Amino acid sequence: MIPGPTNMPDRVMNAMQRPVINHKSEEFRELHRSVIEGTKYAFQTQNDVFVLTCSGTGGIECAASNIVSPGDKVVVPVSGVFSQRLKENFERFGATVIEIPIEWRKAATPSQIREVVEREENVKAIGIVYNETSTGVTMRGLDEVGKIAEEHGALLVVDAISILGGDRLPVDEWKVDVCVTGSQKCIACPPGVVMVSVSERAWEIIAKSRRGSYYFDLMKCKEFQEKLETPYTPAIPLFYALDEALKMLKEEGLENRIKRHKVCADAFYDATQTLGLTFFADPQVRSNTVIAVNIPQGVEDKAWRDLMLKYGVAIGGGLGKLKGSIIRIGSMGIISKVEVNETVSVLGKSLAELWKPVDVDAAIAAAEKVFASSS
Amino acid sequence: MIPGPTNMPDRVMNAMQRPVINHKSEEFRELHRSVIEGTKYAFQTQNDVFVLTCSGTGGIECAASNIVSPGDKVVVPVSGVFSQRLKENFERFGATVIEIPIEWRKAATPSQIREVVEREENVKAIGIVYNETSTGVTMRGLDEVGKIAEEHGALLVVDAISILGGDRLPVDEWKVDVCVTGSQKCIACPPGVVMVSVSERAWEIIAKSRRGSYYFDLMKCKEFQEKLETPYTPAIPLFYALDEALKMLKEEGLENRIKRHKVCADAFYDATQTLGLTFFADPQVRSNTVIAVNIPQGVEDKAWRDLMLKYGVAIGGGLGKLKGSIIRIGSMGIISKVEVNETVSVLGKSLAELWKPVDVDAAIAAAEKVFASSS
Repeated sequence: MIPGPTNMPDRVMNAMQRPVINHKSEEFRELHRSVIEGTKYAFQTQNDVFVLTCSGTGGIECAASNIVSPGDKVVVPVSGVFSQRLKENFERFGATVIEIPIEWRKAATPSQIREVVEREENVKAIGIVYNETSTGVTMRGLDEVGKIAEEHGALLVVDAISILGGDRLPVDEWKVDVCVTGSQKCIACPPGVVMVSVSERAWEIIAKSRRGSYYFDLMKCKEFQEKLETPYTPAIPLFYALDEALKMLKEEGLENRIKRHKVCADAFYDATQTLGLTFFADPQVRSNTVIAVNIPQGVEDKAWRDLMLKYGVAIGGGLGKLKGSIIRIGSMGIISKVEVNETVSVLGKSLAELWKPVDVDAAIAAAEKVFASSS
Repeated sequence: MIPGPTNMPDRVMNAMQRPVINHKSEEFRELHRSVIEGTKYAFQTQNDVFVLTCSGTGGIECAASNIVSPGDKVVVPVSGVFSQRLKENFERFGATVIEIPIEWRKAATPSQIREVVEREENVKAIGIVYNETSTGVTMRGLDEVGKIAEEHGALLVVDAISILGGDRLPVDEWKVDVCVTGSQKCIACPPGVVMVSVSERAWEIIAKSRRGSYYFDLMKCKEFQEKLETPYTPAIPLFYALDEALKMLKEEGLENRIKRHKVCADAFYDATQTLGLTFFADPQVRSNTVIAVNIPQGVEDKAWRDLMLKYGVAIGGGLGKLKGSIIRIGSMGIISKVEVNETVSVLGKSLAELWKPVDVDAAIAAAEKVFASSS
């Protein structure tokens, strides 16, 4: 129950056993075609999409390094570890980042972004972490930001690593120019591959940009993808796994998966609150995939997480300046009532030992109520 | 039988079925510790080693981007597609590359390199592709180059992707400062992770360099590795696979594995010659892992490889300017007499159909002779 990697369906794990084929063969091209098709469905896009062998941060480097040339101006609201990382990636490739500092429990609003983009001139891109995994906060109004970007000739670059498949993100409808997601979160595939989409407007910029990374050069990816190949040897077992995971997404239906994430998150929020706990995120922008819970006074972070682990549930700790003050529950991928109730039960049991008596039955009942009203 | 990815042992494939654990857990740290230990054995090094989630070219970007800052001078002999790629990687991160152009069927000699390094001043690094996968050529005298680099205050950066484990490369003894290898070649693990070693002399440079890539920043890797963690989510199934593959290497013994590669390659060369074929590489520098065979006049590249594939053996075609004029057989990983004889048999059968009568029995006998004299 950490905020990714998530638990894996057997079908996805078994897919990795298929033979490691020649990545320049017809068989690979067929696999690649299927993965691309599945990714376009997940992204709800007709844009080009690419699958890269790397972890999520590699996907962010890909986005940043292809878009900016030294001196370009980029606007990034920073409200946690991953938006800080997005900012640093743009800077590493020479961008001047106009940071919008945001209280960590909140998210930037479209009007805050509009104001900065209008004040600054020639903004090349707006970089948004849609779901800040470190704080359990999802930005709302991303579709508005897409309009702002287009109006001002800027690109909208979205880090959707811990949310795509778990909340709405219709890439084309919302005018997202470059969208990055990971395999190991709501897609329920092992880590090691990322998916990146690129709009027509983004291609115009990329073709003329400095493209500071060799490995992540999207022009090279595009050239090879025309033959359904990758420029460098792909992680073939992970391509099989991703293909299977994307097929499972298609079978469930994107809308259904998003609803399932929302219901499980609501159940988590209600149950956890019933245990007497409070949340880090502002309720208006709380995430449907990462539940950030404040550690109650008197409870020690590591002792709590270790005890939960002893009872069979792994959860995440706080990152950066939140280390020791919050825990994070990942509610992603193949999450269902079973995992929610088990986690709530272990949360309660451990709190009863480390903190004070809590009503686990009432908490489970609160979760059950959410599940009942959703079906 | 392509020049990587190679066939996988069942043990390695099965290892990928283990649960996708939390990459910040004690369990992962234990796995990581084991992988690092196995990598140090494979590299014969006491230097720091890192396992990165990417393909071989990502490892090359890691080496280049950490070593050079804009304006630094780097010497690279270029004799094929991969040495050209190494050169381009250094250039991408701002280096001025002094190219030593080498006929593609040959390799640079230590004296050619010494001459250039002595003529140029302030060479920051010498970049060598130890085994040029595109031409089936292995450079000889790499230990000499290590001495030249040290004498001149330059670093020796080695692309050993398609050879480490298949030929000698004692990293410390030969004074290799940064060595990169892939998982999917002689180590017999699926593609998607690479291993990089870093010497003390290299760390001094890296600490002060520009480090143009964020994802591949070795200072960040070093910081996290002190806690046995990785800076970004690793491809956990591939870490399991690599751990198993490295255990198999240890069990076999590095010297034995190198000998096995040499014997299989010798058998391939003798058998293939008996079929009436000739080799692309100069005999003095022919590779023990990639057998580059000239396509005989009258035989069409794709028709030949397709026919071999129909008979159950996949081989590689020529890359870059060699497309259509050579085929490449990968003799790597779990290669043994069985694979050699089967490949020779299919080579012969297909040539008899497309070219002229060939003596397959004599070819197999030539291979058998090599195996017999080696045991």
